[in-house]
Amino acid sequence: MTPTHAKSPLVFTSNPLDRASEMRSDANWLGAKRAEPQARFLLFWKLQPLLLGPEAEEATEFYLVDGASLQRVNDAATQEVFLGLDGESPYFAADISVLEYPIATLKTDSRYRESHFRDARAALEVLPIGQTAILGQAKALLDWHARHRFCSVCGSATISLDGGYRRECPSCKAGHFPRTDPAAIMLVIDGDRCLLARNKRFGVAHNHSALAGFVEPGESIEECVRREVFEEVGIRVGNVLYVASQPWPFPSSMMIGCFAEAISDKIQVDGSEIVSARWFEKETVKKMLAGSEIDGVRLPRPIAIAFHLIKAWVEG
Amino acid sequence: MTPTHAKSPLVFTSNPLDRASEMRSDANWLGAKRAEPQARFLLFWKLQPLLLGPEAEEATEFYLVDGASLQRVNDAATQEVFLGLDGESPYFAADISVLEYPIATLKTDSRYRESHFRDARAALEVLPIGQTAILGQAKALLDWHARHRFCSVCGSATISLDGGYRRECPSCKAGHFPRTDPAAIMLVIDGDRCLLARNKRFGVAHNHSALAGFVEPGESIEECVRREVFEEVGIRVGNVLYVASQPWPFPSSMMIGCFAEAISDKIQVDGSEIVSARWFEKETVKKMLAGSEIDGVRLPRPIAIAFHLIKAWVEG
Repeated sequence: MTPTHAKSPLVFTSNPLDRASEMRSDANWLGAKRAEPQARFLLFWKLQPLLLGPEAEEATEFYLVDGASLQRVNDAATQEVFLGLDGESPYFAADISVLEYPIATLKTDSRYRESHFRDARAALEVLPIGQTAILGQAKALLDWHARHRFCSVCGSATISLDGGYRRECPSCKAGHFPRTDPAAIMLVIDGDRCLLARNKRFGVAHNHSALAGFVEPGESIEECVRREVFEEVGIRVGNVLYVASQPWPFPSSMMIGCFAEAISDKIQVDGSEIVSARWFEKETVKKMLAGSEIDGVRLPRPIAIAFHLIKAWVEG
Repeated sequence: MTPTHAKSPLVFTSNPLDRASEMRSDANWLGAKRAEPQARFLLFWKLQPLLLGPEAEEATEFYLVDGASLQRVNDAATQEVFLGLDGESPYFAADISVLEYPIATLKTDSRYRESHFRDARAALEVLPIGQTAILGQAKALLDWHARHRFCSVCGSATISLDGGYRRECPSCKAGHFPRTDPAAIMLVIDGDRCLLARNKRFGVAHNHSALAGFVEPGESIEECVRREVFEEVGIRVGNVLYVASQPWPFPSSMMIGCFAEAISDKIQVDGSEIVSARWFEKETVKKMLAGSEIDGVRLPRPIAIAFHLIKAWVEG
């Protein structure tokens, strides 16, 4: 049996916590865990995690606080979620977006002096891999709470339950659960060539990548891959091979990475989402992966599953 | 490259329609399509599709109506979604749940006399495979609309746009998209044995199956498989191999079918969700797949991806 997980762990995977999901609905257990002195809280302000040290730090980690420290900066009601257990330490994430100037507030407390909030994407680049996974879990959940305060069935305000893994409507009794949107990302392959495309949304960090799109209701992964590739570049796909998956909490996707075997080769870009697409020889891609910019083409960085798909193909 | 899609198409896959997703946001195009004489409507009453012929029919198909017929039974506002194009024919689904006695109403029109509404699960068993896919697409979308009439951000009533693939809040301007929940389903394998378990929710149609659970925020497919297996039966999993996927619109899942290689073998069931679990030899499973009930164990039916996972392992 061949392992299907990537050999080098992807950002947002390899979560070291035991989610203890069977315990979440036990409010007494959760309350006791929260009150333990070894409980740790990861603070988020407007979806930015609190990190250790000064802002210029290039390798750092979470600034985890205990319950007493959390109490000082935030005794107002705020969203909390239970993340899991690290050995005997229960981990929680707390949203303190209600504070207007959190860093100023925090810095009046000496324990927070050496800390800063960093944009979640930027934090990816400086955190150890296991902490990126905790970041992804926490950010996806807090973002979901922030955008799901009301019942989609009847419009009433809902409440958070089960350590933040459920919301319930007191009015119509509907239950609501955190959302995860499956998206397929696929490297289209034609023998020794692969297809890389420029999406009009791509910025300066990279300008060419694999194609991608959300799985629609009533669609298998393979059907999604074939539809997206045909819609975006006019290529017909035969076999689809699953390679790896990556949570991508911007805001709540799960990227499902595949190879897509082309059975036609004439490219016709849709012009709306994809502005250009080309076939690239494996030798050229190898040089670009090693850092070269060829004809102005820059590939995605290692934080993205697209990089790993391209690498797996080049090395395969 | 090995194809990862199942050899025999799974129920809810193989959708023959061109979703024409790039055209959905063009209200003029959609309005013109809807008005064409070749436009066809699949009617749903409380999520049950309208099928051709009498209720006892064991192999049947959709009772598709044209716009003029739809107008007769339902001139009240109702949810419609655009499904796609079948050649030159645009397909739509229309929710006529607002009618109190739809069959009685329909039967006053001679064109509806030979038709009936059938429970969606039961319809699976009698429709051609491509129509099960259209059924899944339509049911998932109509169900989503029925449960997402209000904005989860601010609680205001929302409106349907883009042929039913988007809702928008006129008050806070938030956009809302159809939901698809990824779930992993995994056959745990230990050499020539596989693990089958009895979930307390299983009824009489089958009583043992593969394990399954929803992918959580911040989790890869592989992490979900390992967590669910450990939580439910106490077995540690090493390699995970993706096999196939199946949309399962009850209400909106996408089942991601995997083999999970056990690296421990002592079973400890959670007792809450899983009430019993056992290792089964391949020879025994082969007989059960062929229809035998052994020790009272009944496997899932071919409509479920679990059946195909078990079959792929037995035949592999």
